[in-house]
Amino acid sequence: MDQEKSYRHLLKWGDRREETVSHHMAELIREKFGLNDEDFTRKHLPGTDPVKLDKPPVLKPAQVEFLKKVCGEENVLTDDFSRARFSCGKFYGELLDLRMGFVPDPPDAVVAPRTHGEVVRIIEFCSEERIAVVPAGGLSSVTGAVRAPQGGIALDLTRYLNRVIEINRVNKTVTVQAGMYGPALEAELNRQGYSCGHFPQSFEYSTVGGWISARGAGQASTGYGKIEDMVVALKAVTPAGVIETREYPRTAQGWDLFRVFAGAEGTLGVITEATLHIFNYAPQNTASAAFIFRSFEAAVETMRGIMQAECGKPHLFRISDPDETDIAFRTSGFDGTFADRILTMLGFRPGSRCLMFVTVEGERDYARFVMKKIRRKARAGKGMYIGTSPVRKWLEQRYSSAYMRDPLMDLGIMTDTLETAVTWDKLLNVWKAAHEYVSRRPKAFMMIHISHVYENGANLYFTFLSPMEKGNEKQDFASFHRGLVETILANGGSISHHHGVGRVLAPWMEGHLGKSSMELLRAVKKHLDPNNIMNPGGTLGL
Amino acid sequence: MDQEKSYRHLLKWGDRREETVSHHMAELIREKFGLNDEDFTRKHLPGTDPVKLDKPPVLKPAQVEFLKKVCGEENVLTDDFSRARFSCGKFYGELLDLRMGFVPDPPDAVVAPRTHGEVVRIIEFCSEERIAVVPAGGLSSVTGAVRAPQGGIALDLTRYLNRVIEINRVNKTVTVQAGMYGPALEAELNRQGYSCGHFPQSFEYSTVGGWISARGAGQASTGYGKIEDMVVALKAVTPAGVIETREYPRTAQGWDLFRVFAGAEGTLGVITEATLHIFNYAPQNTASAAFIFRSFEAAVETMRGIMQAECGKPHLFRISDPDETDIAFRTSGFDGTFADRILTMLGFRPGSRCLMFVTVEGERDYARFVMKKIRRKARAGKGMYIGTSPVRKWLEQRYSSAYMRDPLMDLGIMTDTLETAVTWDKLLNVWKAAHEYVSRRPKAFMMIHISHVYENGANLYFTFLSPMEKGNEKQDFASFHRGLVETILANGGSISHHHGVGRVLAPWMEGHLGKSSMELLRAVKKHLDPNNIMNPGGTLGL
Repeated sequence: MDQEKSYRHLLKWGDRREETVSHHMAELIREKFGLNDEDFTRKHLPGTDPVKLDKPPVLKPAQVEFLKKVCGEENVLTDDFSRARFSCGKFYGELLDLRMGFVPDPPDAVVAPRTHGEVVRIIEFCSEERIAVVPAGGLSSVTGAVRAPQGGIALDLTRYLNRVIEINRVNKTVTVQAGMYGPALEAELNRQGYSCGHFPQSFEYSTVGGWISARGAGQASTGYGKIEDMVVALKAVTPAGVIETREYPRTAQGWDLFRVFAGAEGTLGVITEATLHIFNYAPQNTASAAFIFRSFEAAVETMRGIMQAECGKPHLFRISDPDETDIAFRTSGFDGTFADRILTMLGFRPGSRCLMFVTVEGERDYARFVMKKIRRKARAGKGMYIGTSPVRKWLEQRYSSAYMRDPLMDLGIMTDTLETAVTWDKLLNVWKAAHEYVSRRPKAFMMIHISHVYENGANLYFTFLSPMEKGNEKQDFASFHRGLVETILANGGSISHHHGVGRVLAPWMEGHLGKSSMELLRAVKKHLDPNNIMNPGGTLGL
Repeated sequence: MDQEKSYRHLLKWGDRREETVSHHMAELIREKFGLNDEDFTRKHLPGTDPVKLDKPPVLKPAQVEFLKKVCGEENVLTDDFSRARFSCGKFYGELLDLRMGFVPDPPDAVVAPRTHGEVVRIIEFCSEERIAVVPAGGLSSVTGAVRAPQGGIALDLTRYLNRVIEINRVNKTVTVQAGMYGPALEAELNRQGYSCGHFPQSFEYSTVGGWISARGAGQASTGYGKIEDMVVALKAVTPAGVIETREYPRTAQGWDLFRVFAGAEGTLGVITEATLHIFNYAPQNTASAAFIFRSFEAAVETMRGIMQAECGKPHLFRISDPDETDIAFRTSGFDGTFADRILTMLGFRPGSRCLMFVTVEGERDYARFVMKKIRRKARAGKGMYIGTSPVRKWLEQRYSSAYMRDPLMDLGIMTDTLETAVTWDKLLNVWKAAHEYVSRRPKAFMMIHISHVYENGANLYFTFLSPMEKGNEKQDFASFHRGLVETILANGGSISHHHGVGRVLAPWMEGHLGKSSMELLRAVKKHLDPNNIMNPGGTLGL
């Protein structure tokens, strides 16, 4: 391992798209936040020192030896850089820590098991020896779900447990190891004529096990469902034994046990395999449409009508609120064009107009038919069809926008996202209250979109930007973030729709769910993990 | 209460349709089982004695007094007939017991709480005093899920907790008390332009709470989902407190707690309220079609193709296997008609031909479009369209066929149903093995259908008839039933798709789910019901 690697190396997703912000984005923040040329030449909190840990390890040498015996010498890493790498995910607060050369929660070792059987041996051993275990996939958690505050081991599932076990063409399912990354799974499925149907923004750096553990949602979840809707069976190793559910469609034999692991965020055990529904790979059939509405309210009302009409559903279904729409128009160079002036003349004005994106997938004529229905409903809701290319352009930059956070932080910009699930009758309240909250901070702006839609409600996704309070970056962020979470909850939103809870949102769990519910979660945890070794230290508020 | 009422009164669903078997059915069983005229004039095990219980009560007088104080004198019944009525559901073995004047598992009292608050007080009291509580809805369980082997109380939720609390038109949901019967709920929803979308065969005599507890499925579940797919929130009273989940669409805040109560069969607590998705009431839009196939295999292959095509789904989707198809043709008077001869000539021969029924619901043009796709796929699968009237006729007698069991038992015919959930790759195996098993019994026949369909599999529903072994009715049934269950499980089916497990199927739970899974179920039970008062005595094998 390269001991000279800096903290800065840990920020990266490993993707070149994170080097700089785009020209349009640079212009925008220069204007909004009054940045000057100098701000663009130096890097704030660059994190260029070499990684050096000083937290003493909890693991005893004999324990490390045992792990090496189980998994092979080369699969137990104890160097500082590896430990730091597995000490956190991609939560803004964690990235700040790294930039400041601070690694509060490193595991003592990163262990890469080669088989399900090795995971069983490791969990048995760690439970007996009271060693904390943090299951780790793509490390893309934005909720602090992957940290080792009690040391112990991070279990790197991606190194070996990353293969498709079986594609079952009769049942249209895939059985896959939990550590497989999205792109590898999708490539293998595509070769067989299928798609996984699950494309979260973290797709390029997240794994099947992570998707299930956090209850993730892909961009086409409105049509394909969230990951918990796709799981038909799974295998998980817990300190209380292996739980292996079997694939029976909607069987009524007690309650669904696999659903305990969907959303458990590694606190109950290690998912090693899952069987998932797969879908036909036929991108040539996808029908797309972009619409523009005069107001967020009108767009939301149309979206709700489409979801409740019982005439087929979109797969991708999104609305960008006026602030997000304005930014999208501006950073795409649309602002001030002739088309922009026409739109404005027609009453689709900056500051209130909203973009809606839709795709319908499936058989070609089916996708076209449903899209025709949707276009008719959008028109009835006073939405204007503006073609398909905005959807295509959005899809092209879909993953890369997440990588913009690091260059923004280089410029001293605080930026993070939150999201919530909310019923239709409370959605506008949450939206308004969140904007109102952010507007009280000078030099801050927030973009909100809806990206996962249901019959009874949708998610709201919040992206905020504001200059860091230099010298007080962490406290400033923490209090701003806390206020936004509380605003969402107070107005009827849930803690999370698809990011999960982790340690960052855990403080709100008990108040939000109620004491009896929280105690039920804890009872399940206590049974499966009696010595509290699985991702301990506050995840989910357990 | 009328103390002179007989055991026979308890057999009845209260429906006049159960008085006799139809002419065609009488002909059929006369021929198949060699019955003579005399068999049709007398009733076997008629159960005409007045109900009289001799099992000593467990409840102390002071406890009965407390319950009367909580719920009102008139809402605590201790007469023999009421106790016998709440001592069982509609499992064949239970009906045999009643016919023999045997009431093995009566509660000591039937208590009808008037409010959620009264349920809370009752459960607290009963947990402290170690009094067994059996939540009771429509008493239509066919798995022995509603029995009081430890005495205690049956909680009659239907008397008061039977109202719609709120229809939320924005979220398209209804919040309803658990003791509301299907028809009352549907009527109220229809008045508002909605439908509950859930029509199990027990619809007329089952309740919302029962649907959820047993994970029921309605006839249109392929389109609308099973009841567990419709629940968005619920309120349940457990000895460990009230668990109240809130309605957030697919929120990622730990695992889904309401799902613990879906399938719990009253073993964890009493569901008092639920919020469910509702659907547009537009029966005039429904597109229907019946098809006939030359073989079960061809029909199943076509069904699977339709479910996996991603071109919209049917709502009702059924295949009757050759034996069921032959019975349907015969009892509807189709046999021997000109049309029948034509079908046979075309290769759709008795003994191998299969009926398929389909409906598509939703907006009118959507339903038509999807039906057109289905008709095209059925044709490609060598199915022949035979119009819409077979579907309409089937729907008309949909509920009444269940009421035929009592008159069949009067004739000395053993008849019961079993069902399973199975993936496509094992479905034909289970189907064949079950038929093979039944064929080994002289004078027995079995009809099998598929009625709930998914991307990865379907259910199989087994109805068998055979003359009782007179004098040894119970043992004979028990061993025949056991053999069929074991045949299903050994060939890859699950314990149940929508009847649930109850006490009848409980002996197979641990072997089927595995020890770790069973222990997890027990741990949840132990936490929520530490004194084991909720529907105790073997339900779910807990």
